[in-house]
Amino acid sequence: MSILVVGSVALDTVKTPLGRVEEVLGGSASYFSVAASFFAPVHLVAVVGQDFEESHARIFRERGVDLGGLTKVPGRTFRWSGAYGEDLNQRTTLSTELNVFEHFRPTLSDWLKKCEFLFLANIDPDLQRSVLEQVKRPRLVACDTMNFWIAGKPESLRKTLEKVDVLLINDEEARQLAGETNTVRAARRILSWGPTSLIVKRGEYGAALYNNHSHFAVPAYPLLDPVDPTGAGDSFAGGFMGYLARAGSVSNTTIRQALIAGSVMASFCVEDFSLRRFESLRPEEIRTRLQEFRRMTEFEDLV
Amino acid sequence: MSILVVGSVALDTVKTPLGRVEEVLGGSASYFSVAASFFAPVHLVAVVGQDFEESHARIFRERGVDLGGLTKVPGRTFRWSGAYGEDLNQRTTLSTELNVFEHFRPTLSDWLKKCEFLFLANIDPDLQRSVLEQVKRPRLVACDTMNFWIAGKPESLRKTLEKVDVLLINDEEARQLAGETNTVRAARRILSWGPTSLIVKRGEYGAALYNNHSHFAVPAYPLLDPVDPTGAGDSFAGGFMGYLARAGSVSNTTIRQALIAGSVMASFCVEDFSLRRFESLRPEEIRTRLQEFRRMTEFEDLV
Repeated sequence: MSILVVGSVALDTVKTPLGRVEEVLGGSASYFSVAASFFAPVHLVAVVGQDFEESHARIFRERGVDLGGLTKVPGRTFRWSGAYGEDLNQRTTLSTELNVFEHFRPTLSDWLKKCEFLFLANIDPDLQRSVLEQVKRPRLVACDTMNFWIAGKPESLRKTLEKVDVLLINDEEARQLAGETNTVRAARRILSWGPTSLIVKRGEYGAALYNNHSHFAVPAYPLLDPVDPTGAGDSFAGGFMGYLARAGSVSNTTIRQALIAGSVMASFCVEDFSLRRFESLRPEEIRTRLQEFRRMTEFEDLV
Repeated sequence: MSILVVGSVALDTVKTPLGRVEEVLGGSASYFSVAASFFAPVHLVAVVGQDFEESHARIFRERGVDLGGLTKVPGRTFRWSGAYGEDLNQRTTLSTELNVFEHFRPTLSDWLKKCEFLFLANIDPDLQRSVLEQVKRPRLVACDTMNFWIAGKPESLRKTLEKVDVLLINDEEARQLAGETNTVRAARRILSWGPTSLIVKRGEYGAALYNNHSHFAVPAYPLLDPVDPTGAGDSFAGGFMGYLARAGSVSNTTIRQALIAGSVMASFCVEDFSLRRFESLRPEEIRTRLQEFRRMTEFEDLV
């Protein structure tokens, strides 16, 4: 089954203790779609400016991401610049230029409206809802958001949450959104607002799934040489949705497996700047790392 | 098999958003020994002052902890006072009075020297080594330490580490000890100094095991109503060592199970102030929570 993602395509300038890259491909929808493409067909809906070059789109074409919904309009592409501290956990945003993204109004073709799996990346919750209003009965809708929308458009975000099945956010955002300092309480409150599953991303500590059935936690893959965490959360979402779309199932069993796939794709993302690691990534490497999660988490029954 | 623990017994004054307790039983060896006592016989070696009352020692007697090595000397018992912020993750130490603990020189009876499992709680690494010099071929030696000793007595600590099998510390301490911002690299360096296993405690994110065989991660039990995190790390160590001592094994399989037992005992500790939760804790509750870790972490093989 195929996936539709609506979000940002950006040109990023990123500095980490290991180096600096300038005007490289970034944006939530970019990371998501490339990570998901290893599992299922992906349709990307986003906007870029006249300065977005064919070379920037190369990885999308190589990965078979459908760019029918990628609109090029007059103006400059969305730009983001950030820097990471020594341990890669602290990120400082140096600049955000919305540019053409400021007037992004996603319009889906009749064909895209029928996608079974929909991911609403971190964009204005009003826009997320405008996409939701266009699609026809998707099997699963997942979305992301961030502190900017939690603080700035809480009512709109709540209306979006009523209509999504899975919310993927980090733990700080979960606490902020729920107004609860305890993550478990925060999760319960968020689930009462609509989503049937909440996935809390915890960076180097992995991710946790909260839903009505159960609690599930998956560690992060331990990386000896992380290079750039930009896009890890979106790559996680891409692996997660990709796995579900390939399985064609949204059972609790599949959702757990999909969290492992998400962790695996996030771990590859962090191994290089921008989407570079995905350029060389081979399916066998994904399989091997999926298996490593079994070894990292298995234990015999306690006596 | 039985466990020997050498560490502190203290009177704590603790403030959390949920309340305040004054001069209650605390100290690393207290939490450790009571948590471990649910799995195996425990011998406690520590020092208290004349103000340490029979009522303070009640839980030790109820749990069958051997107090033959608990010395009472003239002076006041070690006191610690701390306060936690809204989300219980930030702790501020308000005061530390070493009192009789300042001159603590643990001396083991001939009988205690033969204990198979030794836990050196967070005390001066010189003292940890003086204990190590007294014991006769224990099956397993584990130790804890803290930023104070990492910064203040690095050479002594390194000498202690040469002689221990398992080091249990939190992730910030692991990075500080190794002088590495990446935890995986920090773990590799620490393992090169002597310990065969490093357990990195991550608070609400659980714990990770690093050794030559493999990497293993266990989540924390998701608590809806955490009350006081004081002693969680020592209770983790108690559950961990207790499980190994009961199994009489230090295989990689048992060590993984023991991490689950550690997580379970830490989760109970946090449910009330001081050691109160252990007063009412029943073996069935431990068994139930051990089983919940299976459900929290299991997933089917990925296809």
